[in-house]
Amino acid sequence: MKVISGDKVIYKFSPDMKAVESISPGDVIKVETNDCFYQQITSEDQVLTEIDYDRLNPATGPIYVEGAEPGDLLKVKIVSIDVKDKGVAAVVPNEGALGDQVTKPIIRVLSIEDNNAIFHGVNLPIKPMIGVIGVAPSEEDGPRATDSPWKHGGNMDTTDIRAGSTLYFPVNQKGALLALGDCHAIMGDGEICFTGLEVPAEVTLEIDLIKDKTIKWPLVETDEYTMVISSGDNLDEAVYEATSQAVNHIKDSLDIEWEDAYILASLTVDLKISQVVDPKMTVRAAIPKHVVSTEKLLESL
Amino acid sequence: MKVISGDKVIYKFSPDMKAVESISPGDVIKVETNDCFYQQITSEDQVLTEIDYDRLNPATGPIYVEGAEPGDLLKVKIVSIDVKDKGVAAVVPNEGALGDQVTKPIIRVLSIEDNNAIFHGVNLPIKPMIGVIGVAPSEEDGPRATDSPWKHGGNMDTTDIRAGSTLYFPVNQKGALLALGDCHAIMGDGEICFTGLEVPAEVTLEIDLIKDKTIKWPLVETDEYTMVISSGDNLDEAVYEATSQAVNHIKDSLDIEWEDAYILASLTVDLKISQVVDPKMTVRAAIPKHVVSTEKLLESL
Repeated sequence: MKVISGDKVIYKFSPDMKAVESISPGDVIKVETNDCFYQQITSEDQVLTEIDYDRLNPATGPIYVEGAEPGDLLKVKIVSIDVKDKGVAAVVPNEGALGDQVTKPIIRVLSIEDNNAIFHGVNLPIKPMIGVIGVAPSEEDGPRATDSPWKHGGNMDTTDIRAGSTLYFPVNQKGALLALGDCHAIMGDGEICFTGLEVPAEVTLEIDLIKDKTIKWPLVETDEYTMVISSGDNLDEAVYEATSQAVNHIKDSLDIEWEDAYILASLTVDLKISQVVDPKMTVRAAIPKHVVSTEKLLESL
Repeated sequence: MKVISGDKVIYKFSPDMKAVESISPGDVIKVETNDCFYQQITSEDQVLTEIDYDRLNPATGPIYVEGAEPGDLLKVKIVSIDVKDKGVAAVVPNEGALGDQVTKPIIRVLSIEDNNAIFHGVNLPIKPMIGVIGVAPSEEDGPRATDSPWKHGGNMDTTDIRAGSTLYFPVNQKGALLALGDCHAIMGDGEICFTGLEVPAEVTLEIDLIKDKTIKWPLVETDEYTMVISSGDNLDEAVYEATSQAVNHIKDSLDIEWEDAYILASLTVDLKISQVVDPKMTVRAAIPKHVVSTEKLLESL
């Protein structure tokens, strides 16, 4: 199994970035990821403004997938996410959903033992997830800093991007050029304060290719749903994009009129908030598999 | 058990509305509710613009609760929601999350049999919920049409307002003056097209009073969460309000600093979308009970 080491990182998803490793469809790989601070924070006494802000949100990669061409889908199954035994959370004035109410910066470093962290006496069973994961964007979308989400993926900060889930990305460049980082041991939907419990991790992925199919925004498949993950300058824009795609997927998969698909979405699709704190905001429109199976949805593309 | 019949309805939650029935704390009551069209739609061939728009979103009540005074909480446990055997969904140009993409109005009337509806071959197990439920608003908030949600409740269109859940409302007027209607047999989070599967229903409620406690926005308690339900002119405003209250509840319940409560919320609170299609939009900030129990939260008020 190939291992992509955590010192090979990017800070931008660029159309023309250079791969650090090459793999084939069907490969299972291990990716070492850094926390969003590149492990610069080790103590609660550190001064947040003194860390190197050029080293935030490193993503390990990019990884070249043989045979991937623009117009294909990259399929990424998350086999496992093994997080380290210490996580960091932080509050910074003017950051997060309630940034205007923050009176002082604070850092909290929490130990993780037996899959639990403890904070103020509250037991927190960890639920590891990947914050940043994506592929090279199109020329049109241009380079995108790793702290922001968009059509290529990026900082989607979506709790459903966890072990057992499968992601589907549009391939925009030859080789797809996958990179990932910014794992969280635990985070609520929304990522209210602007960090989760930030941790380095070892992520095992199974990579595959679906030829000649394309999507506008990434999908994540869970046991129950296929979800369209969309971002926008505010939640309303993100909702509009995710909903548009979800209704189209239902229409095309079931071969029904758009208005009927709109009703079926209203009765069954759950709009979920991913995060409200990054440069763009992210939601997901979750289509239940009993309405449209992921297989049927992919076939209809 | 007192029964409030479905012909006693309001179209506005007003500070000075007149009660149609009086009950005592501890009473279990049955409320007959109308669908959001007041059952004016019975066929898919009807013309939507020809129904009486002055009769949309009727709420049955108001019900006077003995002993309820401004500054108390009204506790409403939803014992059961029995929906009728036929539901209506509709699409109208310029309505819903994708109103600009609608090319024509359509009505769909679905039969409900053995707790299932079928639409385009897809089986839809029903999950009955109450769309409109609230109390008299404060003078400051003024009269509020039943089609809109606000601090008094109203058209919150929240899927978690279902059998087994418990609502908590701020009492703004003597007797609280509860009213409800607009049940949905099934609806996804978001209510994308602007209707759920709209049905008349019989709702059984257990009403209680918590003296001398107050909240800014309604709460709904489920098995897993205590949720703050907030509304705003857009989702971002609604998120700000719900998140502010959730962080304050955590801070007060655990007696910790605001910044630590902000982090704990970021790690554990789930922001959820209720609806994006009413005159105001609604979200809920879901505090897991293992972080703060509902009992502890209420004690801290």
